[in-house]
Amino acid sequence: MNFASDNTTGTHPKIVAAIVAAADGRAMPYGNDSITKRVEARLAEVFEHDCAVFLVGTGTAANALALAALVPPYGAVLCHPEGHINTDECGAPEFYTAGAKLAAIAGTHGKIAAGDIDSHVGLAGVGSIHHVQPGAVSITQATEAGTIYRVDEIAAIGEICRKHGLALHMDGARFGNAVVGANRTPADLTWRAGVDVLSFGATKNGAMAAEAIVFFDKTKAESLGFRRKRAGQLWSKHRFLAAQMEAYLDDDLWLANARHSNAMAARLADGLRGIAGVAFRDAVEANELFVRLPEKALQGLERDGFVFYRWPGADRQLIRLVTAYDTQAKDVDAFIASARRHAT
Amino acid sequence: MNFASDNTTGTHPKIVAAIVAAADGRAMPYGNDSITKRVEARLAEVFEHDCAVFLVGTGTAANALALAALVPPYGAVLCHPEGHINTDECGAPEFYTAGAKLAAIAGTHGKIAAGDIDSHVGLAGVGSIHHVQPGAVSITQATEAGTIYRVDEIAAIGEICRKHGLALHMDGARFGNAVVGANRTPADLTWRAGVDVLSFGATKNGAMAAEAIVFFDKTKAESLGFRRKRAGQLWSKHRFLAAQMEAYLDDDLWLANARHSNAMAARLADGLRGIAGVAFRDAVEANELFVRLPEKALQGLERDGFVFYRWPGADRQLIRLVTAYDTQAKDVDAFIASARRHAT
Amino acid sequence: MNFASDNTTGTHPKIVAAIVAAADGRAMPYGNDSITKRVEARLAEVFEHDCAVFLVGTGTAANALALAALVPPYGAVLCHPEGHINTDECGAPEFYTAGAKLAAIAGTHGKIAAGDIDSHVGLAGVGSIHHVQPGAVSITQATEAGTIYRVDEIAAIGEICRKHGLALHMDGARFGNAVVGANRTPADLTWRAGVDVLSFGATKNGAMAAEAIVFFDKTKAESLGFRRKRAGQLWSKHRFLAAQMEAYLDDDLWLANARHSNAMAARLADGLRGIAGVAFRDAVEANELFVRLPEKALQGLERDGFVFYRWPGADRQLIRLVTAYDTQAKDVDAFIASARRHAT
Amino acid sequence: MNFASDNTTGTHPKIVAAIVAAADGRAMPYGNDSITKRVEARLAEVFEHDCAVFLVGTGTAANALALAALVPPYGAVLCHPEGHINTDECGAPEFYTAGAKLAAIAGTHGKIAAGDIDSHVGLAGVGSIHHVQPGAVSITQATEAGTIYRVDEIAAIGEICRKHGLALHMDGARFGNAVVGANRTPADLTWRAGVDVLSFGATKNGAMAAEAIVFFDKTKAESLGFRRKRAGQLWSKHRFLAAQMEAYLDDDLWLANARHSNAMAARLADGLRGIAGVAFRDAVEANELFVRLPEKALQGLERDGFVFYRWPGADRQLIRLVTAYDTQAKDVDAFIASARRHAT
Repeated sequence: MNFASDNTTGTHPKIVAAIVAAADGRAMPYGNDSITKRVEARLAEVFEHDCAVFLVGTGTAANALALAALVPPYGAVLCHPEGHINTDECGAPEFYTAGAKLAAIAGTHGKIAAGDIDSHVGLAGVGSIHHVQPGAVSITQATEAGTIYRVDEIAAIGEICRKHGLALHMDGARFGNAVVGANRTPADLTWRAGVDVLSFGATKNGAMAAEAIVFFDKTKAESLGFRRKRAGQLWSKHRFLAAQMEAYLDDDLWLANARHSNAMAARLADGLRGIAGVAFRDAVEANELFVRLPEKALQGLERDGFVFYRWPGADRQLIRLVTAYDTQAKDVDAFIASARRHAT
Repeated sequence: MNFASDNTTGTHPKIVAAIVAAADGRAMPYGNDSITKRVEARLAEVFEHDCAVFLVGTGTAANALALAALVPPYGAVLCHPEGHINTDECGAPEFYTAGAKLAAIAGTHGKIAAGDIDSHVGLAGVGSIHHVQPGAVSITQATEAGTIYRVDEIAAIGEICRKHGLALHMDGARFGNAVVGANRTPADLTWRAGVDVLSFGATKNGAMAAEAIVFFDKTKAESLGFRRKRAGQLWSKHRFLAAQMEAYLDDDLWLANARHSNAMAARLADGLRGIAGVAFRDAVEANELFVRLPEKALQGLERDGFVFYRWPGADRQLIRLVTAYDTQAKDVDAFIASARRHAT
Repeated sequence: MNFASDNTTGTHPKIVAAIVAAADGRAMPYGNDSITKRVEARLAEVFEHDCAVFLVGTGTAANALALAALVPPYGAVLCHPEGHINTDECGAPEFYTAGAKLAAIAGTHGKIAAGDIDSHVGLAGVGSIHHVQPGAVSITQATEAGTIYRVDEIAAIGEICRKHGLALHMDGARFGNAVVGANRTPADLTWRAGVDVLSFGATKNGAMAAEAIVFFDKTKAESLGFRRKRAGQLWSKHRFLAAQMEAYLDDDLWLANARHSNAMAARLADGLRGIAGVAFRDAVEANELFVRLPEKALQGLERDGFVFYRWPGADRQLIRLVTAYDTQAKDVDAFIASARRHAT
Repeated sequence: MNFASDNTTGTHPKIVAAIVAAADGRAMPYGNDSITKRVEARLAEVFEHDCAVFLVGTGTAANALALAALVPPYGAVLCHPEGHINTDECGAPEFYTAGAKLAAIAGTHGKIAAGDIDSHVGLAGVGSIHHVQPGAVSITQATEAGTIYRVDEIAAIGEICRKHGLALHMDGARFGNAVVGANRTPADLTWRAGVDVLSFGATKNGAMAAEAIVFFDKTKAESLGFRRKRAGQLWSKHRFLAAQMEAYLDDDLWLANARHSNAMAARLADGLRGIAGVAFRDAVEANELFVRLPEKALQGLERDGFVFYRWPGADRQLIRLVTAYDTQAKDVDAFIASARRHAT
C-alpha cells in the first residue's frame, strides 16, 4: 500500500532470474561480455536506429553523463524548473559538466514549450563571452507532473534545437510509461522527433539498478566511455547491468510493466475523481497523480497506513501518488475506498 | 581457467540468494530501508568501532568519494605510483575532488614507506600558496603488487599522517585478502593503526557490485551523503547494495572467500616456483602473483586457453595472475602443469 | 559622451600616479610588499573592523573567489535573477565553486527581500541529500538596477542568514556609489548589518584593474590564498594591485569619485524626467539609470553619437545609462538636450 | 641587489608610459578597443603567423587557460617534473581543465626528450577507458633550469606530438630570454617547430602584469573567450593589458630587455666560475643560474644583503640567481666580489 514512489518497488522476477543466471562462471569485465553486446543490439532494434549505448546503475548518473557529453563547462542546459535534473539530483549535472548552468524555462504541467525555448535563446546572449551558452535542452518523458509530451510537441522542440544548434536530451526515467501512454513507438518519441540522447530508465519500472544512456547521434558519445569510468559508473562486473536490461527488454517486459502501472494509475484517478473535494493538478497520462484531497481524507489515509508524499510547496494538501509494475488493483481500490470514507 | 582478474568472477551464491530475497515487496528508497541499517550495525561490529558507512556500486566511486571528503581542490593525495587511484581510474579522484593532485611516492613491492611520506611533505611547501597542500595519504591493502602492509607499517604511516595533519585512506578493494593474509583483525589493520577511511571492497571477492566507504572518523563524513547523491552513486533501490553487503559479512563469508582465494594463489606460486626460468617480482601474500615466465611457457599457456594479462611495461614476459573465491584447485594445477610442460 | 558603462573609463590620474611611483625598483612578489601591508591596514580602518584582504584584478574573480570560500560544490548561492554573478560572468561562480548552483530569488528593483530568502530556504530541502544546500546569499550594492539596499534591508537579510546558517556576500562592484548614495558608513552597510564578505570594487570607480575581497569573518578566508593562486589571480608584481587600491582609498578618493558619479546620474535623471514619454524603471539612487525613452529620442541620441545600451529584454526602448567619475556635466546636459530635441 | 626572481622587478619606463597614455578618455571594454586590435596584429607580425591572441594578467592564467583549451577533463598533460605548471601553480591546470592530470616526464637540465614522450605515450593506455588520455605536451622555454630548448629539440617533440595527436604547448614565461639565448626567430622556436599554443610572457621581462596566450592553431582557440571570462581573467579595462603588450613589443623592447638580462646572467656566471667550490648545476643559457656555492660564501652574501633563494631540495647550498631587465652590472660585480671574498 505504498504509493510514495515507483522506486520503493523491488525487482521484477524475470529480471531477478536474469541476474541469477548471470551469476555463474566467468566473463570479461567492463562491458566486454556477451550479454552487453546483445543488449546493445537489442536496443538498436527497439529504437529502430543505430545507437551508442552506455549502461549505468542510476538515473542521476545517466542524466548527468549524457549532459556532460552535450555541453561545455560554459554551457547551459535548458529544462523545466521542476525537472529532476534541476531539483532532485543535488547538482549532479553541474558536477558532471564541470559547472554548466541549468536554465529553467517555466511551463504548465511539467512541460516546456518550443516557443519558450526559442525566446529564451533569443535573449541568452549567444556568442557573447559574458554569458553561458545554451548547449542543450533536456525534457522529461513522462514528465515530473505525470503528463506526456506528444510527438508533435517533441518535434517542435527538436526543430528549435536544430535552429539554434542545441542538443536535445530526454530524461526517460519513466520512458516506458510514456511509450504506453502515448501509444507511439520508441523511435517516434525520440530520434524521429529530434532527440539526440535518451536516458532510458529501467529501475523504476522493474529493474534493480539499471539505466541505459542511448545516443542516437553517436558522434556525441565519443567522450562517454572515459567520462563513465572517471565517474566511477562503470561496473567491473558489467554483465549484471546488461542482464537486467536484457530481461527488461525481453518479450517487451518493459512495456507490459508500464502498461500495468499506467492502468493502475488510471484506475486510481477514476476512483478518486468522484470524491467531493478532490482536484487534479495535471492530467493523469502515465503512472503519477498530482492531486489535492481534503485534509480529512489525507489524515484518514495516513492513519490507514497508506504511504505517499505530501508534495513540497505551499499547498500541504497536494499529494503525489505513484503506481508501479507491482501495484495491485485491490490496493488501489482500498486507497479509493479509504479516501472516500474519510473525505466526508 | 581465467586468471586475468578477480573481477571476471560472477556473484557468490549466498550473495545471489540475498538479492533474490530482497527483490520482493516494497522498501523505502535511498538507504532508508532495514537491511541498510543492519549492515551499518554489522560493519561497526566487524571493525569494533562506531563508523559512518556509505554503500556504492564500484570501487572507483568508493575511493573517489572518500578522497573528496578528505582533501580540498587545492590539496594533494600522496599515493604509490602504481596505486589504482593513480593509474586505473581515468582520473576519478581528480574529478571528485575538483582537481586535487595525486602525488606519487615510489616504493618497492607496491608499498610506500612512512619515511618517504615524511620527506615528501617536508619538501612540499606546506602552508605556501604556490603549492598544492598535502591533505591525505592513500594506501592500498592488499597492494597492487599482491603484497600486504604489515600492521607496524601502517601504524608508522598513520603516525606520520598525524604529525602532518594528513588523513589516511585505505583502498581496500582486496581488504579481505589482506585480513586473511596478515592474520590480523580488521580493526588492527585500520583505525587502530591510524586509518581514517576505508574503501571496503566486496565486488572482487564475491559480490555483484557493492563497496562500502567506512569512515572511522565520522566528522570527516559530513559531506559524503551529498557528494554521493551528486555523483549519481546513491542507488534508489539501496536495499540491493545492502543485501549484498549483509550476505558478504554474514558468517564471515568475506573471510572464507578470501581465505580460499589466497590459498589458491599460494598453491599457484608454489607450483610455479619449481619451474626453470620462473621469477617472482613480489612476495605472494594475497591473491595476486606478479611473475616472469619463459616466453615459451607464456605462449604455451596462451595456446592452452589460459587467460591472464601480460603486465604493461617494458618486460613483456612479466604477467599477473589473480585467483578468486571461485578458483578451483584443478585449474591451478592445470596452469602449473601447462607452464612446466611449455617451459622446457 | 559614452554612457554605456563605467568600465569604459580610463584610470584616475591619482591612481595612475601611484602606479608610476610603484614602478621603480624592486619589491618582494605575491603580496609580500610594503604597499600591500599598508592597504590591508587601511581597509581595516575604512571598515572599522579587522579583516582578511585579498586583492585581485577583476570583479568576476572577486565574486567567484568569495563564493568559493563560502559554499561547497553541493551548495547553493541565493541571489537576484539579474545579479551579475548569475547573468554576466559566464558561469564564473559555478566554475570556482566546482559546480554549486545559483538559486534566483526574484525581487523588484534589483533587490531580494529577507522574507523571500526565508521562504526559499524553507522549501529548499535543507539537510536532504537530494537537494543542493543553501550556503550563502549574495546581494549587489548598489544593485544592478541602480538602486541601493537600505541598512535595515541588509540587516533583515543578515538576520535570515544567521537563522539558516548562511553566509552573506555583497557584490560591491559599485560599493562606493552605494556608500555615498545611502549616506552611511562602510561598516554600517556591511558587517554591522551581517555581511561576511564584500567584493570591494575599485575598477569601475577609477582604478585600472583592482578589486579587494574583504572578509569580515576571517575564519571563512582560510582557503582563499590557495584558491586565488590556483585560479591564476595572484599577481606576481602584486604591488601594482596594492598601489591602485592605496591611491583609491587615499584622501577618500573613492568617495569623491562616487559622489561625482552619483551627482551626474541625478543631474541626468532630473533632466530626462521632464521629457514627454520618458519613464524610469527604477529609482535613481547611484550611478545607473534604467529608463524608457521614445524611440525617436533613442534614434536621435544614437545619431548624435551618444553611446548607451538598449537593455536586453522584450522592451527595446528601455536603455541603461551609466555615469562615472569622469562624466562631465556638459555631456550630461548635451544628452538631455538631444533627448528632448528628438523626443518631440 | 635582489637576485631572487625577475618578478621582483617593477615595470619598465616605456611600459609605464604606455599605461599612462592609455589612462585618459574612454574606450570600449573587454578587448573591443583599438590598442587590443593593434597588439593582435603586431603579434602576428612578430610570429610571422596568423594567430588567435588572448591577453591575461598572470602567467598561471595563461598556462592554465591554454591547457584547458587543449585537453579534456579525462586528459593528461605531459610535462617536466619541475615544470612551473606542475609545481608552482597550486594546481591551476587541474582547476582550469576540470581535473586533467599532469604526467611528469623526467629529463636533465629542465628538458624533456622527444623519445621519452614517445615511450610514455606508448605505455599510457591510449584509447583505454581506464586511463587518462595524453592530450598535450607542455614544455617551458627558457626552462625552469635556465636552459634553452634548441630548435631541433622542439621539432623532435613536435613530431612526436603529431604522431600521437597531442597538442604542443609552450610556457614562455621567459620566452624573450629564450629567443635571445637561442638566437632564433620567434617563429622558429614555436609554430615552425610544431608548437600549437604559446604562453607569451611579458611580466617577468618588464611588464606590470601582462601575458598573451598565442594560438598558432586558431581552431583550438574556440572555447578560450568563454573560458577566460568564466575564469575572471577578462579585464574590463582591457586596453591596459594591451597597452603594456604594445609597448613591450614596440621597437623590440622585449628583446632588448631579454638581451640585457641574459648578458647580466652570463657576466654573473663568468665571475662565479673562477671561485673555488663553485659548481653550476646547469648551463647558463638565459637569465637563471642554478649554482652551488660554499656555505661560507652563501652566508657572507646573505650578510652583505644579497637576496636569493636557497633552492628547495636536499642540497641547501644550491641557490638560484635570476637577473632581469634592470639588473645592473655593478650589482653583478658586487655579488661576485662578495662571493669570492667569503668563499675563502
